[in-house]
Amino acid sequence: MNNRTENKLSIFALGGVGEIGKNMYAVQYANDIIVIDCGSKFPDEELLGIDIIVPDISYLIENKDKVRALLITHGHEDHIGGLPYILKQLSLPVYASRLTMGLIEGKLKEAGLLGATERHLIHAESELKFGTLTASFFRTNHSIPDSLGVVLDTPEGVVVHTGDFKFDQTPVNDHHADLHRMAEIGRKGVLALLSESTNAERPGFTPSERNVGANFIDAFRKAERRVIVSTFASNVYRLQQVIDAGVATNRKLAIIGRSMVNMITIASELGYLNIPDGMLIETNEVNRYADNQVVILCTGSQGEPMSALTRMARSNHRQIEILEGDTVIISATPIPGNERSIGRTVDELFRLGANVIYGQGAATGMHVSGHASQEELKLMLHLMAPKYFIPIHGEYRMQLHHKKLAEAVGVAKENIFLVDNGEVVEIANGQARKAGKVSSGNTYIDGLGIGDVGNIVLRDRKHLSQDGILVVVVTISKQDKTIKSGPDIISRGFVYVRESEGLLDEAGRIVSRTITKSISDNVNQWTTLKSNVKDALGRFLYEQTKRKPMILPIIMEV
Amino acid sequence: MNNRTENKLSIFALGGVGEIGKNMYAVQYANDIIVIDCGSKFPDEELLGIDIIVPDISYLIENKDKVRALLITHGHEDHIGGLPYILKQLSLPVYASRLTMGLIEGKLKEAGLLGATERHLIHAESELKFGTLTASFFRTNHSIPDSLGVVLDTPEGVVVHTGDFKFDQTPVNDHHADLHRMAEIGRKGVLALLSESTNAERPGFTPSERNVGANFIDAFRKAERRVIVSTFASNVYRLQQVIDAGVATNRKLAIIGRSMVNMITIASELGYLNIPDGMLIETNEVNRYADNQVVILCTGSQGEPMSALTRMARSNHRQIEILEGDTVIISATPIPGNERSIGRTVDELFRLGANVIYGQGAATGMHVSGHASQEELKLMLHLMAPKYFIPIHGEYRMQLHHKKLAEAVGVAKENIFLVDNGEVVEIANGQARKAGKVSSGNTYIDGLGIGDVGNIVLRDRKHLSQDGILVVVVTISKQDKTIKSGPDIISRGFVYVRESEGLLDEAGRIVSRTITKSISDNVNQWTTLKSNVKDALGRFLYEQTKRKPMILPIIMEV
Repeated sequence: MNNRTENKLSIFALGGVGEIGKNMYAVQYANDIIVIDCGSKFPDEELLGIDIIVPDISYLIENKDKVRALLITHGHEDHIGGLPYILKQLSLPVYASRLTMGLIEGKLKEAGLLGATERHLIHAESELKFGTLTASFFRTNHSIPDSLGVVLDTPEGVVVHTGDFKFDQTPVNDHHADLHRMAEIGRKGVLALLSESTNAERPGFTPSERNVGANFIDAFRKAERRVIVSTFASNVYRLQQVIDAGVATNRKLAIIGRSMVNMITIASELGYLNIPDGMLIETNEVNRYADNQVVILCTGSQGEPMSALTRMARSNHRQIEILEGDTVIISATPIPGNERSIGRTVDELFRLGANVIYGQGAATGMHVSGHASQEELKLMLHLMAPKYFIPIHGEYRMQLHHKKLAEAVGVAKENIFLVDNGEVVEIANGQARKAGKVSSGNTYIDGLGIGDVGNIVLRDRKHLSQDGILVVVVTISKQDKTIKSGPDIISRGFVYVRESEGLLDEAGRIVSRTITKSISDNVNQWTTLKSNVKDALGRFLYEQTKRKPMILPIIMEV
Repeated sequence: MNNRTENKLSIFALGGVGEIGKNMYAVQYANDIIVIDCGSKFPDEELLGIDIIVPDISYLIENKDKVRALLITHGHEDHIGGLPYILKQLSLPVYASRLTMGLIEGKLKEAGLLGATERHLIHAESELKFGTLTASFFRTNHSIPDSLGVVLDTPEGVVVHTGDFKFDQTPVNDHHADLHRMAEIGRKGVLALLSESTNAERPGFTPSERNVGANFIDAFRKAERRVIVSTFASNVYRLQQVIDAGVATNRKLAIIGRSMVNMITIASELGYLNIPDGMLIETNEVNRYADNQVVILCTGSQGEPMSALTRMARSNHRQIEILEGDTVIISATPIPGNERSIGRTVDELFRLGANVIYGQGAATGMHVSGHASQEELKLMLHLMAPKYFIPIHGEYRMQLHHKKLAEAVGVAKENIFLVDNGEVVEIANGQARKAGKVSSGNTYIDGLGIGDVGNIVLRDRKHLSQDGILVVVVTISKQDKTIKSGPDIISRGFVYVRESEGLLDEAGRIVSRTITKSISDNVNQWTTLKSNVKDALGRFLYEQTKRKPMILPIIMEV
């Protein structure tokens, strides 16, 4: 299925459907492929030792001569986080708007890929021709500036990819979505719409980012001592509102956390963030100011172990100590899976005497989502009025809810395609159908390794993590086939050796007996001898402890 | 601090504060100790391989001659789950109400402790004398029947432990909390109140369990095919309402999942659950009935990997297959940490064509909490009007919020004690103060082992889980001190050997070089030789892969 060079239009995801994260979509007509986004995602806890996951791009590598461009919609990790790994496998020209490119360049520099990567700045008015395909863009409103939707003009008709969006009628910095351009695109006719599904389960309209700013000012006013705000570094509008509330309450601003410093540097340089002269102070200057004249912006809103807020909460941050009466605002919603670590951070902050404002964002007023809720998704569907609809960017249940919304707005049921990663929607002569799959999947990143950790390694890690390992070393005499030394049993992650001497002594006796018996039974194969040891020892340990450590017999003839 | 035999009253937690789970509280006067509850909790994901956590009862073991009774408030795991492990360490007479005792006996039987354990049935009117202490009880309303609060009459005054509770004004089966008795206890005077804090962060009043029943009937009526309800087996009222809705919509009832079958058997036998004759069918009879004449009650509301609902969702349940159009109701709220696995189950069910009703309970109407919200907590505080207040049963932030509620109701700020596990509140001559700590902590259960897995083992498991292990085997000649065989490198959980031959070959050369050089440098100590190998190999691997596998050198002289 990896060859689709006929004069047909193919649309498929290499990542981002049936999951949250690692977004990567492809649109192909004949010999022209355009790729949209190149994201990463964090592994589930069962993927032990894996740092990050990126899309499997086998299809693109096999068809590398056809890939014309990698268009990036915005600068969030689930849209740009895969670049340092993907570009190591396949060099592609990258197209992105200014802030997005600024963030990408930081990543490429760190990965040593900056010089080798062809980069093109784009903006909402850009129009680019790639063989049979023409790309243009439209401004959307999202929780990071410079977010774009993509319009691809193809011989079969227009394909629209929304990027991530909401419809904020009162956006910060007046960064409005370009409703009029969207209406124009829709009026001219859209063959297929790919629209994001993150909040498709959520009724109503997502509140305006500006609501948060008003609540910040209230909270800052009430705070009698320092204010510490933790949020996602990438939410530049949120950062601006922290700054604005700081200005309104006459506070100096300190910034803590590598990604926060990085983001604020890039966003300020490029003019997306406005910090008044003299407001910014160094972390070591904080104590020179009265407590009610300071606001600190920091990372750690998800309870990440090494982040600034977590360190402060555990009283092991080098520079900042939480003081009784400090106000800590967690301006974020827990990402599923992070609830416990955030809870621990909140508890520690309370123990230190801080006043902590936390919880589900909507309840506290200190956070709003950057994604469209149901009414906004319907608005997008209504504006674009597509013939075909492919809900993207979400777990299956979100795609399914988005499908129902599209039906409600009037898209014909049979014209809506719920796809998995790799599944191809093919359009020819105005007719769409599912047409097989291209290669797709997860590529695991562990340290410097790209894809060198697979299922066997992960299965071993899982086994080791649950019950540890016993290494059993025995030497056997070449001459008389008796045990010459050992068995020595080394335990790691199984039991305390000191407290389990009886158990391990008996284990040693069982190994000796098994080897002696096997030899007298004329077992000559090393593999059989080893597997006899494994079986006998494993059975004994399971009976005694109900645990199944990995057993590694090392038997040598000397 | 483990000796407190003077004529003073001591109150402390051995588990349950600063955490959710493993509840165990103790009240001591002179030589009399009464213990309340004996719970377990589930380990966080970083406690690799640990099955369950129970309280460290060193204090009770050291003072075993003084422990008069173990009173159990109700039959939830966080109150009875520790029994099979604690009673193995220390035999205690157990007091519990009928349903609670039924559940306890099931556990003791399985653990082989039933015969050896002294058991006493109690009820709301029981009064028991234990040396200087007298215990009586009051009925509370909670998400399991037969829940009790405890009143301890001591020479210093009355101590009240609420157990878990809510104030449901329209309870299922008319199991009302005994408001009048509580009022009487409060009127007579309470020295110290220990009240549960689970929902202390939640404003308002927890809705009545009966609300869920009405929503069940609506959902069952709308369901055109089978209805499958997943909930906590222990919520007998919820089960009753599923049964009632099944009766109202003329459906037969099948039960799936070991703990569900177990609970329904015990609760029916003891008369806490009313299933009409002829309603119950076997799982293999389900297909004999029309789809709209069946309701299935099953486990799996938290996405547990081996549970009935998870198996059905993954299409690998032996007997029940999810059919297009089935209605699946998840009648529970995700416990923090379970969101992802529940999400996966929901996705799989949708993929099979089921109509899934899920999400935060309040939003769907299919779940309500069993714990008192802020207004109910204040009502309890008001009814008991204690002199001293100790918020229990919750994370620190919940205890703290509960403290604020108590202040609002009029308890003097200095009379409220926020305690950690082990911290003692001592009351003498009517005056309370914090008075040191007794031993307390977590005892880890792994298989049959009680407390034999500690920090070193867990640290090793963590290390092994992240980057695996390399075992390096070398034999050295006794005569000329040269390498005789090896190095052989065995990798588990590090890299695929097949795909990393170059890396491992080079690793072998580095080991050889290191050993040869060490020997020519006259290194005679085995430990030094081994640590040289570890260092050199570790450095090389980190440079090449940015990973740090555990390295286990096995060097033998032959």
